[in-house]
Amino acid sequence: MQVIRYPEKSEWKDIIARPTFETASLESIVSSILDDVKLNGDAALRHYTAKFDKAEIENFAVSETEFEEAENLISAELKQAIFHAKENLEIFHGSQIEKPERIETTPGVVCWRESRAIERVGLYIPGGTAPLFSTVLMLAIPARIAGCGEIVLCSPPDSTGKIHPAILFAARVCGTTKVFKIGGVQAIAAMAYGTQTVPQVYKIFGPGNQFVTCAKQMVAREGIALDMPAGPSEVAILADDTAVPAFVAADLLSQAEHGADSQVLFVTTEEKMIEPVLRELESQLNRLPRRDLTAQALENSRAVLVKNADEAIELLNEYAPEHLILACQNDEGIAAKVVNAGSVFLGKYSCESAGDYASGTNHTLPTNGAARAYSGVSVDSFVKKITFQKLSAEGIKNLGATIEAMAAAEGLEAHKNAVTLRLKELGRKAAV
Amino acid sequence: MQVIRYPEKSEWKDIIARPTFETASLESIVSSILDDVKLNGDAALRHYTAKFDKAEIENFAVSETEFEEAENLISAELKQAIFHAKENLEIFHGSQIEKPERIETTPGVVCWRESRAIERVGLYIPGGTAPLFSTVLMLAIPARIAGCGEIVLCSPPDSTGKIHPAILFAARVCGTTKVFKIGGVQAIAAMAYGTQTVPQVYKIFGPGNQFVTCAKQMVAREGIALDMPAGPSEVAILADDTAVPAFVAADLLSQAEHGADSQVLFVTTEEKMIEPVLRELESQLNRLPRRDLTAQALENSRAVLVKNADEAIELLNEYAPEHLILACQNDEGIAAKVVNAGSVFLGKYSCESAGDYASGTNHTLPTNGAARAYSGVSVDSFVKKITFQKLSAEGIKNLGATIEAMAAAEGLEAHKNAVTLRLKELGRKAAV
Repeated sequence: MQVIRYPEKSEWKDIIARPTFETASLESIVSSILDDVKLNGDAALRHYTAKFDKAEIENFAVSETEFEEAENLISAELKQAIFHAKENLEIFHGSQIEKPERIETTPGVVCWRESRAIERVGLYIPGGTAPLFSTVLMLAIPARIAGCGEIVLCSPPDSTGKIHPAILFAARVCGTTKVFKIGGVQAIAAMAYGTQTVPQVYKIFGPGNQFVTCAKQMVAREGIALDMPAGPSEVAILADDTAVPAFVAADLLSQAEHGADSQVLFVTTEEKMIEPVLRELESQLNRLPRRDLTAQALENSRAVLVKNADEAIELLNEYAPEHLILACQNDEGIAAKVVNAGSVFLGKYSCESAGDYASGTNHTLPTNGAARAYSGVSVDSFVKKITFQKLSAEGIKNLGATIEAMAAAEGLEAHKNAVTLRLKELGRKAAV
Repeated sequence: MQVIRYPEKSEWKDIIARPTFETASLESIVSSILDDVKLNGDAALRHYTAKFDKAEIENFAVSETEFEEAENLISAELKQAIFHAKENLEIFHGSQIEKPERIETTPGVVCWRESRAIERVGLYIPGGTAPLFSTVLMLAIPARIAGCGEIVLCSPPDSTGKIHPAILFAARVCGTTKVFKIGGVQAIAAMAYGTQTVPQVYKIFGPGNQFVTCAKQMVAREGIALDMPAGPSEVAILADDTAVPAFVAADLLSQAEHGADSQVLFVTTEEKMIEPVLRELESQLNRLPRRDLTAQALENSRAVLVKNADEAIELLNEYAPEHLILACQNDEGIAAKVVNAGSVFLGKYSCESAGDYASGTNHTLPTNGAARAYSGVSVDSFVKKITFQKLSAEGIKNLGATIEAMAAAEGLEAHKNAVTLRLKELGRKAAV
């Protein structure tokens, strides 16, 4: 970890720079797979599953028997943990449901908004080194609370043709409607275009490697909505002299272990925090099973000593981290000044892993600085908010002249005429 | 207008098909302008403004004098109309501000969401045949209500180097912070990358021609957020036997006059509504100044007779129109069944132009079927919702085992360790 003391503002740009990824070079490979699935449906899915996952799959849909087998493989302790996390996620996401409120803007002109679930959504859960069943909870629970009718989940099979039991168990208890043993670009294609067995969806959620990310971007150009732009996971920690170095190091490591491309940023106002945190990093790192990967992520990461809390928060807002931990006495005061972040953790007991798994907040969050303009996943991500309006005769009389004047000034006579005809009818009625 | 009676479901796909547009062919032109502005800033802006807008501009920023001149050119009647519309938009969008609510998901685990304005946003307002000052209201008002610090507006100058006075007047009264005389791809580039005079923004809003649309899509790939995918404007009207044919025709025409690529869909359960509406269309069309354009749009449009209200709403949900007018006795009952639409207008006095200008709802809405997954612009479009959480000692004790079990099952030991260390510390404290 590189230590930078009292940097000039001109150096900030380099401090907060993310590793860049070139996806354009992947586009030709990805687009050939997308096109093949679009054209050949399930047959293409079988081909790529054999090629990339080394699995021969006849029926991609996970069967009832497979769900039962999976449930039998999950320990009672893990089941209980999943139910506890699920309950917290349901409480927090349940609070995000908006109640329609009718607003009379002008007498006789009533406007309101109502949420409607996106009818069909697709969730992608990667395979790979860690079975991310927690992401199943994070996506399927808000989808179900929103009321999505079809919640499709795709995850790659292993070479024996199976999905990790924890993913299947979570998918079942969180209310996904269809689960398919399909991974990678071919899974994104299947959900974007639909095949004989996979229903087409309107919005695709979930993490993935750079091929999956590229595939999501490419189908987005064809009109499929996405959860948010993808990038490697990251955390920033702000620590004052009340922070516990062992906790700070543990939180940095819990981000760094996600992968060699993860990024952690440690910001402190206290010189005396730096050495203890670095020492803790080293000693804890040596005990981790994913040590090499984690060490690589730390190499790309920085510890920054700044003058005071105001400068710290200015730097952190520029960085716009996915996760921001405020290990500070004045956590609430500093939190009020946070403008750009995905999710904020206050105080010494609020470790990132609480939000990653079980506190109730969502862990699908904007990375790579996207927190400047994007929110994390919530129930909002699974609904559209449709506006409604109803004008009474009184309403159009009160608003008519305003609409006519504006339409005329824009040179849109037909817009004006739609009002004029109605006002005329009401004039005639009034005259009768 | 093509009339289709009692179509089979298999024909729906053709009925609801939108005209398709190929933007890929524009990418090389657009990307050369984007690159030039990125590299050469204001100098490139001057070059393209001279080339495309035939205007020599030294200072792109609209000056105080220019704002005053513009205000003097606006009639008292139009000013009053703009203030009325503004007031309604402020009332309705003001109601969209979310109050944070702290939720205790598990004893000692408190989670909440707070909205933070996107710090810098860019609004694009096209020039062209109609000065769309109403779009200034629709974008700047929610941006200001959200609390965006920098609200940049770009609009192309005419050949005398001026922006239409109604656009400038609306920009001033709605609280934009900087207005620039820049149009087209170069305006999108200026806001996406920043130049010597134009600040870089995080999210770009507003309509435009196919070059502007292509430019927005291309800067989105570089991380700039967009309001929503763009497409030609459209309306669908559902009429029962209580609808007034002249009103239905006027509403269809007020959409069709937007441009030759606009699309209107007229759906009715009543054979006897078709002829009167077609007759009204013809007679009203002949009196319109934008007659040729409007006639072209009508040529691409369809009247569809269906069996009953249920079939109608099923077809309309498949279509997912930007605007949906329910000219029906049972408007509220039918509205409850609308799943996919941008904005819904209930009853015979709720013409689309009410929402286009002044009722209070936003007119920046999802087109081209995007209403299946996207909402129209609202205050939400100008904020991020950040999640916060604070665990007390009690909180981590209550949640710790759950997090540990899940992290261990995902093979993420550092995530688990961040909890274990905290539980140990609390154990030690308890033992003392």
